Amino acid sequence: MEQKQSSPHCIGIVGLGLIGGSLGLDLQSLGFQVHGLVHRSITAEKAKKRQLAQVISTDFQTLSKCDLVILALPIGELLNPSKDLINALPKSAVITDVGSVKAPVLKVWRKLHQNFVPSHPMAGTTDSGVEAGRIELFKNRPWIATPDKSTSPMALAKVKELALALGSQWTTADAEVHDQAVALVSHLPVLVSAVLLKTLETENNSSILSLAKALASSGFADTTRVGGGNPSLGTAMMENNSSAVLRALTSYKSNLKELEQHILNKSWKIIQAELEGTQTARQDLLNNKPT
Amino acid sequence: MEQKQSSPHCIGIVGLGLIGGSLGLDLQSLGFQVHGLVHRSITAEKAKKRQLAQVISTDFQTLSKCDLVILALPIGELLNPSKDLINALPKSAVITDVGSVKAPVLKVWRKLHQNFVPSHPMAGTTDSGVEAGRIELFKNRPWIATPDKSTSPMALAKVKELALALGSQWTTADAEVHDQAVALVSHLPVLVSAVLLKTLETENNSSILSLAKALASSGFADTTRVGGGNPSLGTAMMENNSSAVLRALTSYKSNLKELEQHILNKSWKIIQAELEGTQTARQDLLNNKPT
Repeated sequence: MEQKQSSPHCIGIVGLGLIGGSLGLDLQSLGFQVHGLVHRSITAEKAKKRQLAQVISTDFQTLSKCDLVILALPIGELLNPSKDLINALPKSAVITDVGSVKAPVLKVWRKLHQNFVPSHPMAGTTDSGVEAGRIELFKNRPWIATPDKSTSPMALAKVKELALALGSQWTTADAEVHDQAVALVSHLPVLVSAVLLKTLETENNSSILSLAKALASSGFADTTRVGGGNPSLGTAMMENNSSAVLRALTSYKSNLKELEQHILNKSWKIIQAELEGTQTARQDLLNNKPT
Repeated sequence: MEQKQSSPHCIGIVGLGLIGGSLGLDLQSLGFQVHGLVHRSITAEKAKKRQLAQVISTDFQTLSKCDLVILALPIGELLNPSKDLINALPKSAVITDVGSVKAPVLKVWRKLHQNFVPSHPMAGTTDSGVEAGRIELFKNRPWIATPDKSTSPMALAKVKELALALGSQWTTADAEVHDQAVALVSHLPVLVSAVLLKTLETENNSSILSLAKALASSGFADTTRVGGGNPSLGTAMMENNSSAVLRALTSYKSNLKELEQHILNKSWKIIQAELEGTQTARQDLLNNKPT
């Protein structure tokens, strides 16, 4: 990545977990002065060892000279920010977040800061915490901002510049559209996949259950990967995006019932056509992805 | 693998696709004389180039000297075998199959041959056809036989010897139990995963749909892998194991509805506990697998 600034800005990052820590590593290598704010001294020590920022502190004052602050907090904390945090954000700075749900974030934060830009870098690994951050996490990954009419164009441009510097693919969308889209491709899969695991676990015939566990192979492992992921993250998705998740779930249930009816009707040709459709849909989807 | 026989038997394989071809490669390297029977001359030519058996023919007579014949046919053909095939099977030979559903196979074949052993090597890749066979496909993979009271113990012992020689993990089970177990861990995942793709495709808001496609990442790709797989194989699963699939689906729908109700009730602690349960269940399942 090229250095974008001859005289580096100060960028604040609140939270140095997977996303915050990864931002810290990349932004330093781009030549920025990075100030990291964390809750606990022990986290600060670990983050310092990993050099996730040049300055790492538990003191809110560390943000005072920053002209861009990235709130890399879990969604629950982001939606219930402490007064200390709100007061520590410089009035003239641009503030953005990395939350995976946008309408509730926009609703809370548009009242809290004039230069707030709701954004969502779509990057992740299965790891979390202060040890998880790694370089180039955002490269070639989507970064969606969801401005509304109250969003400052100057602030939006600054966040776009940040995303592009990190190698992300910049997109903007309506916050509600964003939340419905992530419900379909991120939150619904967690739910569908978790229920598959639950269905195995609730099998009440012990012979079937033990044989099924012995026979479960890569197909079952892949289909259940996201349903066996971080429980707090999964719960936060459903809690904070519940209306979009319920809408996606209603559509899912309707499609499931339709397929069940085809089986009951012994409509094998229709099922074959449906599965040809899903095969093509998945191939098209993956073929249109950057490598 | 060690050579099990000083004077090799003749083993017949009917069909030289992924499973049949892989069997041919391993059995030859174990020192067996392998005769492959295929439908079409062009397949025979390709199979000869790949040396999937020592003798490869479209003539049913190629099975006449075999004392073990493995029917490595698609499940549809296995359940509706041609008279030519039935007549070509030596009366004294042991006959086994590799079908992924066992009760219907047993029902058809127990009447057709006195030494039939229903069996299911649980191995596969995404590839199929005469080019797909590869060595050691069965190594460390489960191989389930589903004998009933009419199954010859001598024939069963011979198939067990075969499975162990190939490095498989031998198990026996009741055919109905087997079919319920594969419905849970193999057929239901295909259905659940296909419906997830269908739910994306049937999104009627074009802004949501196009953003969702842009945002779909590895989680969506993994959860939909088996639902975007071979449509004929998926249809055959539902057609030939429909009662077990419908039973698994009923349980799945009930668990899905329960989770939906937790979301509607805003029971986030219950959802957190559920997701902790599925996380643990999946870890336990994968930790108990051989590498």
